[in-house]
Amino acid sequence: MTAVAARILDGATVAAALRASVQPDVEQFTAATGRPPALGIVLVGEDPGSEIYVKTKVKAGGESGLKVDLIRLAATATLDELLAVVDRLNRSPEHDGILVQSPLPPAMGRDAAQRVFDAVDPAKDVDGFHPVNVGRLTQGRPNLAPCTPSGIIAMLDHFGIAIAGARAAVIGRSDIVGKPMALLLLRRDATVTICHSKTAAIAAVSAEADIVVVAIGRAGFVTPDFIKPGATVIDVGTNRITDRAAAAAILGASSPRLDAFDRRGSLVLGDVHPAVAEVAGALSPVPGGVGPLTIAMLLKNTLAAAEARTAAV
Amino acid sequence: MTAVAARILDGATVAAALRASVQPDVEQFTAATGRPPALGIVLVGEDPGSEIYVKTKVKAGGESGLKVDLIRLAATATLDELLAVVDRLNRSPEHDGILVQSPLPPAMGRDAAQRVFDAVDPAKDVDGFHPVNVGRLTQGRPNLAPCTPSGIIAMLDHFGIAIAGARAAVIGRSDIVGKPMALLLLRRDATVTICHSKTAAIAAVSAEADIVVVAIGRAGFVTPDFIKPGATVIDVGTNRITDRAAAAAILGASSPRLDAFDRRGSLVLGDVHPAVAEVAGALSPVPGGVGPLTIAMLLKNTLAAAEARTAAV
Repeated sequence: MTAVAARILDGATVAAALRASVQPDVEQFTAATGRPPALGIVLVGEDPGSEIYVKTKVKAGGESGLKVDLIRLAATATLDELLAVVDRLNRSPEHDGILVQSPLPPAMGRDAAQRVFDAVDPAKDVDGFHPVNVGRLTQGRPNLAPCTPSGIIAMLDHFGIAIAGARAAVIGRSDIVGKPMALLLLRRDATVTICHSKTAAIAAVSAEADIVVVAIGRAGFVTPDFIKPGATVIDVGTNRITDRAAAAAILGASSPRLDAFDRRGSLVLGDVHPAVAEVAGALSPVPGGVGPLTIAMLLKNTLAAAEARTAAV
Repeated sequence: MTAVAARILDGATVAAALRASVQPDVEQFTAATGRPPALGIVLVGEDPGSEIYVKTKVKAGGESGLKVDLIRLAATATLDELLAVVDRLNRSPEHDGILVQSPLPPAMGRDAAQRVFDAVDPAKDVDGFHPVNVGRLTQGRPNLAPCTPSGIIAMLDHFGIAIAGARAAVIGRSDIVGKPMALLLLRRDATVTICHSKTAAIAAVSAEADIVVVAIGRAGFVTPDFIKPGATVIDVGTNRITDRAAAAAILGASSPRLDAFDRRGSLVLGDVHPAVAEVAGALSPVPGGVGPLTIAMLLKNTLAAAEARTAAV
């Protein structure tokens, strides 16, 4: 078999283009209203992953001319305390967007995240998680859409990958990626199949698709038999692997990425097996794929929320 | 070719079973609260089709022990007048459900229906068309779901047709049938593909499915090549045909249904071609299929809204 290397879809390039396209509108908004679009980020506790995400969001927002306020609550904060912060940001005239960083401390209860997302003013819901925004997305109406799937649409557009008329498989049906991804692809006239843990013959179903988006949370789950030769594959998985043997089984014993494992004691692997690069026509890898797009779309959503709030006044 | 006749899924049987299952709960609600669950139906103008639908809904509601109030507005009513009626029903303590019959007079404007659906209190939205209910449906949370797709789920369950693990094709992506149908099938663990006017090779895509739900609004569109032998086919189309030659082309020149055409000057045909009955394993036909289920689910939604409102007090 001749190994054909897939075209690698570089997320950083797309994110940079998105942020460059947002910048003039941010400047115009700031000049017109006398204040920059502003995002309030709420971080509860000190989860190391969340610290990194939030730091990146604050930095990216600042670079694009947005005001980003980071509100920290102790890991011992109650759900009521968190809801009070959300309420204050809802009523704040100068905050256009609100983001509550996941995950929340388990002590807040199982449905805490949903209660918090439901409490965010839909007009400031830059994550697109409020039921009213999910409903508007489903209905194909203008709205604040979840950042990762919107970023993937932007990536496909950036690289000229046709969506209308294509068959698309979305593997995974989470509220954050899978379902909104399917709805956005449908809005763009793809023929969409949603696959999940209960899908029979999932590889064969996936192999019908021209575009495969994978967000199922299982390292290396999507192997070459899932992919029609030449298809576009978008990996959304971020699985932290702490077992060296498991990492080696997926990456191959001679992978240079194992050196990184040896330095750090862990590695983030996507849901897509590396061998897929030999079958796919185009591949958005992990790392290097959709990560920076999510942040770029967050900035775009904050700007959109700011413009809509100003227009509504 | 040997013609194998599909099992006919009789909607009236399922609707009767649903209504019988609702009745004791209606009686219990009425005994406990001193009033029956109440539905307000708003009818604007005198569209003959709407008159029939509304009459059927009023009759079915009464037979099940619900109170159904029909509020009529003249065909010349303005959108503001209609919104004022909706607002009154929203605030009415004794109305649990609100249904505004479609279609609205064209003079009300293109987005009138959406503005009206958005104005209905989500807790009384027995049609399930409000964005917040659409969002909750998408998120897989308990909610008031649109009546026709919920009725189809009830029909599949009634006849013991397995949904979990099945491949399902939904042909048509309307907000009223196609999209909520896909989401309800997904919630029940089917692997769902949504097909539409832009789907390439639509017959081949449909022919992968074990369950095909058709709501595309084109008489006889789904021909035997769309159907895997033995699959279950649910026809949701109601296309009024006024051209006898067109009806004969679909039904066959010797069809006894043409006698009905000759008596009435028109005929309602489904989206599924009659020849599909020779390929499908089970078929919900038009007429005789999902029609009465929609009304049964409306009664069920009204009861559910009444119970939820009482529990919330």
